[in-house]
Amino acid sequence: MPEPRTYLLADIARHINGEQLGDGNPEIRGIATLRHAGPHDLSFLTNSRYRPELAATRAAAVLLANEDRDATSRARILCSDPYLAYAQVVALLHPAPVPEPGTHPSAVVDPEAIIGSGTQLGAFCHVGKGVVIGRNVIVAPGCIIHANVHIGDQSLLHGNVTIYAGVRIGHRAIIHAGAVLGSDGFGMAREGEGWRKIPQIGGVLIGDDVEIGANTTIDRGALDDTIIEDGVKLDNQIQIAHNVHIGAHSAFAGCVGVAGSARIGRRCTIGGGSVVLGHLEIADDVHIGAAAVVTKSIREPGQYAGLYPLQDKAVWARNAALLRNLDKLERRVRQLEAGATGAGKGKSC
Amino acid sequence: MPEPRTYLLADIARHINGEQLGDGNPEIRGIATLRHAGPHDLSFLTNSRYRPELAATRAAAVLLANEDRDATSRARILCSDPYLAYAQVVALLHPAPVPEPGTHPSAVVDPEAIIGSGTQLGAFCHVGKGVVIGRNVIVAPGCIIHANVHIGDQSLLHGNVTIYAGVRIGHRAIIHAGAVLGSDGFGMAREGEGWRKIPQIGGVLIGDDVEIGANTTIDRGALDDTIIEDGVKLDNQIQIAHNVHIGAHSAFAGCVGVAGSARIGRRCTIGGGSVVLGHLEIADDVHIGAAAVVTKSIREPGQYAGLYPLQDKAVWARNAALLRNLDKLERRVRQLEAGATGAGKGKSC
Amino acid sequence: MPEPRTYLLADIARHINGEQLGDGNPEIRGIATLRHAGPHDLSFLTNSRYRPELAATRAAAVLLANEDRDATSRARILCSDPYLAYAQVVALLHPAPVPEPGTHPSAVVDPEAIIGSGTQLGAFCHVGKGVVIGRNVIVAPGCIIHANVHIGDQSLLHGNVTIYAGVRIGHRAIIHAGAVLGSDGFGMAREGEGWRKIPQIGGVLIGDDVEIGANTTIDRGALDDTIIEDGVKLDNQIQIAHNVHIGAHSAFAGCVGVAGSARIGRRCTIGGGSVVLGHLEIADDVHIGAAAVVTKSIREPGQYAGLYPLQDKAVWARNAALLRNLDKLERRVRQLEAGATGAGKGKSC
Repeated sequence: MPEPRTYLLADIARHINGEQLGDGNPEIRGIATLRHAGPHDLSFLTNSRYRPELAATRAAAVLLANEDRDATSRARILCSDPYLAYAQVVALLHPAPVPEPGTHPSAVVDPEAIIGSGTQLGAFCHVGKGVVIGRNVIVAPGCIIHANVHIGDQSLLHGNVTIYAGVRIGHRAIIHAGAVLGSDGFGMAREGEGWRKIPQIGGVLIGDDVEIGANTTIDRGALDDTIIEDGVKLDNQIQIAHNVHIGAHSAFAGCVGVAGSARIGRRCTIGGGSVVLGHLEIADDVHIGAAAVVTKSIREPGQYAGLYPLQDKAVWARNAALLRNLDKLERRVRQLEAGATGAGKGKSC
Repeated sequence: MPEPRTYLLADIARHINGEQLGDGNPEIRGIATLRHAGPHDLSFLTNSRYRPELAATRAAAVLLANEDRDATSRARILCSDPYLAYAQVVALLHPAPVPEPGTHPSAVVDPEAIIGSGTQLGAFCHVGKGVVIGRNVIVAPGCIIHANVHIGDQSLLHGNVTIYAGVRIGHRAIIHAGAVLGSDGFGMAREGEGWRKIPQIGGVLIGDDVEIGANTTIDRGALDDTIIEDGVKLDNQIQIAHNVHIGAHSAFAGCVGVAGSARIGRRCTIGGGSVVLGHLEIADDVHIGAAAVVTKSIREPGQYAGLYPLQDKAVWARNAALLRNLDKLERRVRQLEAGATGAGKGKSC
Repeated sequence: MPEPRTYLLADIARHINGEQLGDGNPEIRGIATLRHAGPHDLSFLTNSRYRPELAATRAAAVLLANEDRDATSRARILCSDPYLAYAQVVALLHPAPVPEPGTHPSAVVDPEAIIGSGTQLGAFCHVGKGVVIGRNVIVAPGCIIHANVHIGDQSLLHGNVTIYAGVRIGHRAIIHAGAVLGSDGFGMAREGEGWRKIPQIGGVLIGDDVEIGANTTIDRGALDDTIIEDGVKLDNQIQIAHNVHIGAHSAFAGCVGVAGSARIGRRCTIGGGSVVLGHLEIADDVHIGAAAVVTKSIREPGQYAGLYPLQDKAVWARNAALLRNLDKLERRVRQLEAGATGAGKGKSC
């Protein structure tokens, strides 16, 4: 992490379009939580449960929502969305790394590859025939980029990423270490008691402004392409199978698995460890909780959940045994109901 | 992906042992879904729900099951298993990559390693002492192959694969990028309030015709070997712990985890995201659904499932709270039953 | 795996502080299970269910608990904890690999990096500016170590590990192939219909004696650090999100996911495939079963579980449908109860 720059509070207020209030115009060198901020840090209140820490913080100034105008008298910036403003300030103080243009002498680059100006290729990178890499891209050491891959401008590939032939990635992508894009989909036909592999000849199309987490894998399509639209954010350890289509600005937390040909809408979120089964559709603006399994298409936006509640192990064992026999419990209730009706009848005579 | 070759429809029919019907003998350059096929593509009907698309397709010809003989009058091939035939045609049109024999000058190969004829070793590969690699193998760039590993003929290792010392892999393996074979099993003994590592001195034995997905991990055995039999297919992001034994032709979808010493039969399938606990046995021909947890040995072939159904979040919260107290609900039913009997008794007097 | 050394049984007994009994002082060349041991192997009984194999084993000698003193008359060592003794004997017979000091000529090491004496840097390693690597460390081929990373003495990094800038790792770490440490946390703020990335400027602090499994990922903190205390053991394919804190000597099985800012106590264990949601706290000595989801803080030590039981698929489908409507079943029970009371009232008049 490079050293952060220094800014006057007023400059920061201008940058995030906020209102500066309180005493002075302190010099800001960093950003920190209320608890850990020092005398040259800007801090922030984005969640009311941290309000008690506001009085004790040593921060030079604080970022607050407009409605918290009077929550403190110290130097502060008011804005409509302090969490977004916090994101903007972190980016201001800690700008993204700038490429050091050039190709490391150890990299192996096919002479027919096209590398844009301002782009940095690290040690031990392999760039195949027909690859096109845009301008101001950073490719960290150890990345393997096979033939005919396209990577857009200002993208950032971290270490040891592998990209199979023909994958296309838009501008401003961030791809974390160990990610694999374009591996074969899991396609095979039964043949005798075994399996015959179906060659996976589709591609992977990734839009602009997509972030892909560490050790995440995205398979190429069987015939058509696997598609990740603009602005999609995928956390670490995610598996995207062949011919999945993810709509723009959807975000999936770590360890999610999406099976083949699932089609997920725009602005969806999926919680960590969830699974989406194959060949189903999820509408726009659907929010799936953690560790859930989507077994049917979801046509309506909204919040969905499905996980077994955690319990003391002995209680769980008792309840799980009853769950295994829920049909029998229901039958007992039905018999009681029949008996109750019978009793009612009895009473009526 | 190299450009596909061109075939006459009659050649394809002969190749897959199918019956050619309808007008002409068109030239086939590709294979595509009914919806996306162009005038030089062969298409296929493997699922009756796509039958409406048969009339509208622009495909040059179509692959059909024998019983769909009259579903169209256009040029077509009839066969007994159109999905298997589709797999065969894709392989015909898009043959597997052929090695370009030789070792990239940047590769580091121990002088005592034995590399078969026709084998290609990519850039930045490391091949340790005592390694034996068969004939016509492709090792993509960035693979690390430690001492005494054996790899059979015609195998294909994609980029950035890591193989620990002593792992043995059969013929025609396909190992996708980022996979790790032979890492230490998770074995340790309690010592005081901490743990003492148990060195993992077993190996990994992988049969012929095994495919291993991207970023999948297979641990070496503690004392004996972890064993993956012939024809096993593992999707991406799978974890196979030490001393697991997987029977021939079993296939696991993405994100499956199998704990130590589990023994899984032949021709089993496990759905994505499922977990198999340690030290248990699963018979041949067992099929486990997605996101299930196998907590006991399964002695009978058949289909098994176990996942919490997805619901609207508010409904889920209500039902999950009841599930947490299912024992109390059962007690209420029991009291009602006792009361009903009591009532019955009461009525009888 | 190097060849094991040879020891007299008496030497082994002394090494593990055990009591040698029975005939002779055989030469021990290996350690094996009762079933697979040969005439130069030491075997062990750590689980009473293997006691029937004790009579038939061909082992030269056996390791037993003190209370099993008379379970056999053959050469044996008695000790208080045979599983821990087994771990010690395996380590004695199969000592950890010793570094071959030096830097492979293909490695790219920044001139400002500091590499301790006795340390081995493998082929195709990249070591950035300001990196400090301790003494007697082994860095296997293909590791990418970015600027300002610190790695303690006697640590072992397996192949193709990626460590982002500024990560600090203690002494005697073992990091398996494909692991990624210090990738960006999944932090972003909503902006319009999309997301704005929050630069992740915290670090990762890893204590002494930590083992990290193959393809496991640990994110850097958003502002403060992600912290893994001494003696923590993480299996393969685990995801640790930003600002997680894991207490000393906790151990997680494969495929666990821990969401952001979760704080887990000391000596905890988490079963394979479990998920811990964000911003919650787990006390010391909490043991979570496999495939569970921790949705609330856990204040009390103990054993916890929560997974949907596996069943025959048809039975599961029936029970899951009832579970989806558990609230309706409860309402029916309530109505019966009201009716029963009503009936009682009726009877009383």
